[in-house]
Amino acid sequence: MIAVDWGTSSLRVYRLDAGGAVIAQRRADLGIAACQGQFAATLLAQIEGWDDPCIVLSGMVGSRQGWMEVPYVDCPADAATLAAGVVSLQPPELPGRTLWFVPGVADRSNSQTPDVMRGEEAQICALIEALNHGSHMICLPGTHSKWVTVNQGRIDGISTAMTGEVYAVMRQHSLLGRSMNQEETRFDAFAFDAGLRRSGMAGGLLHHLFGVRTAALFDQLSASELPSYLSGLLIGHEIRASDLFQRVPRPVQVHLIGSDRLLSAYAHALVSLGVGVQRHSEQLAATGIHRIARQRGLID
Amino acid sequence: MIAVDWGTSSLRVYRLDAGGAVIAQRRADLGIAACQGQFAATLLAQIEGWDDPCIVLSGMVGSRQGWMEVPYVDCPADAATLAAGVVSLQPPELPGRTLWFVPGVADRSNSQTPDVMRGEEAQICALIEALNHGSHMICLPGTHSKWVTVNQGRIDGISTAMTGEVYAVMRQHSLLGRSMNQEETRFDAFAFDAGLRRSGMAGGLLHHLFGVRTAALFDQLSASELPSYLSGLLIGHEIRASDLFQRVPRPVQVHLIGSDRLLSAYAHALVSLGVGVQRHSEQLAATGIHRIARQRGLID
Repeated sequence: MIAVDWGTSSLRVYRLDAGGAVIAQRRADLGIAACQGQFAATLLAQIEGWDDPCIVLSGMVGSRQGWMEVPYVDCPADAATLAAGVVSLQPPELPGRTLWFVPGVADRSNSQTPDVMRGEEAQICALIEALNHGSHMICLPGTHSKWVTVNQGRIDGISTAMTGEVYAVMRQHSLLGRSMNQEETRFDAFAFDAGLRRSGMAGGLLHHLFGVRTAALFDQLSASELPSYLSGLLIGHEIRASDLFQRVPRPVQVHLIGSDRLLSAYAHALVSLGVGVQRHSEQLAATGIHRIARQRGLID
Repeated sequence: MIAVDWGTSSLRVYRLDAGGAVIAQRRADLGIAACQGQFAATLLAQIEGWDDPCIVLSGMVGSRQGWMEVPYVDCPADAATLAAGVVSLQPPELPGRTLWFVPGVADRSNSQTPDVMRGEEAQICALIEALNHGSHMICLPGTHSKWVTVNQGRIDGISTAMTGEVYAVMRQHSLLGRSMNQEETRFDAFAFDAGLRRSGMAGGLLHHLFGVRTAALFDQLSASELPSYLSGLLIGHEIRASDLFQRVPRPVQVHLIGSDRLLSAYAHALVSLGVGVQRHSEQLAATGIHRIARQRGLID
């Protein structure tokens, strides 16, 4: 089968053997925003040479802005819930093949403000198989960071923080960016830690953001240090306000799923704040999609 | 004399009589960013027909990005401190006239993260004359909202929140803006209050921002309501994290200085949160500049 992890900014395809092992994989910067509605053509080009009839997709490709909108399933959700919510499509551009879209998950426990995810649930499904049946906290950092609680093998809480997006817009479009190097800069642990410490002080995030400005104004941090300071400040606020820090007793460990670069920053921050971490690759998506497909009976 | 309140986004000029009363005033969207270094020509056009030899300026025109950088004076500061820090300039484009630049104020009580203002100190100087010698809290909402404490007639604390700028960049450049009406919308008290309430719940601002997205996704708020919701959310976070809410006992009243539209939103939020407000016009700048000029001996 072919597993497709298709998000807002990237497209990852995996060819899997019957046991779910990855035989081949490809990646392109062709997120659903970039492919401009040409979903079939984009996918066909990406899986060229792979003739597997069964294609299972997860991520924003199943959102209102994607190929086909798939209704969310509600928490608590596990592989069986997700499998039951899978929706099929047989597009004319892919004769003889069926596409299966994995649903996203909605947390409606706060009735006034639901929370949602699309794509992360596949990675979590794969991780769950490796965990015991107790309570676990999983963080998937990104443009919209997801904090997910798993209990007895089921996803039972979702909380999203717009950390990555706030970082990007403040850096690109606010006064703060004018003092910073605009090219991607190396991670500066000293500046990151200073931002992380600042996030624990009084005054709130809106005030702390202005401190990035005064740090530049009074030459306390250089143009190459400021991005790491801003990153530490935002990630610190995200972590301190997360469910992790509200719980008594505080969980001693968080599972991190994501790219190496982001995971390094989050692991550094969490360890600094006294929380242990276990890192997992974002390629878990392929394993999770395979598990959901098997649960649905799409493969043996 | 002529008092000039020249900030990042607008230029306001006032012609004052000997007693400090405003005889005439003009306003233009010619902030220091818009006039592209043409400070003398821009000012001359704006004060055409006014031949007063003494011109006193305050605001970002005295910053590194302005006409001439004037060093900050430190807290605690009053009219005498500000007057002593005034710097003069006799530009060739204005023969026979002298420009006097009022300094901004720096609060270095937090040695790691100083805070600053430029322009607001003139308005505060005018207000101080009307206050008793006790402790007062003043809020000047805006792109960068200033929370200023006054004690015994002197400015002794500054805390800035980037509320207005975060609102603007999130609305114009983030995913949140895509669900919103882009034209300026009317103030929606219902949506604003919902945002204000949300700001008092657990999860932190970065998480609450994602709630603006889900409110749109689940059709809880319309495209015309979302801007007010975002505004209530941000202003709520600003106020709750401000020094006002950290103090014991909490001050019962805040002085608000600014434009009618912004002051309405802040007054609504503060009163909802149990704090009394007194509103003051931003035209206080003219009175304050006159007071500083008199203190410096520039006028009788």
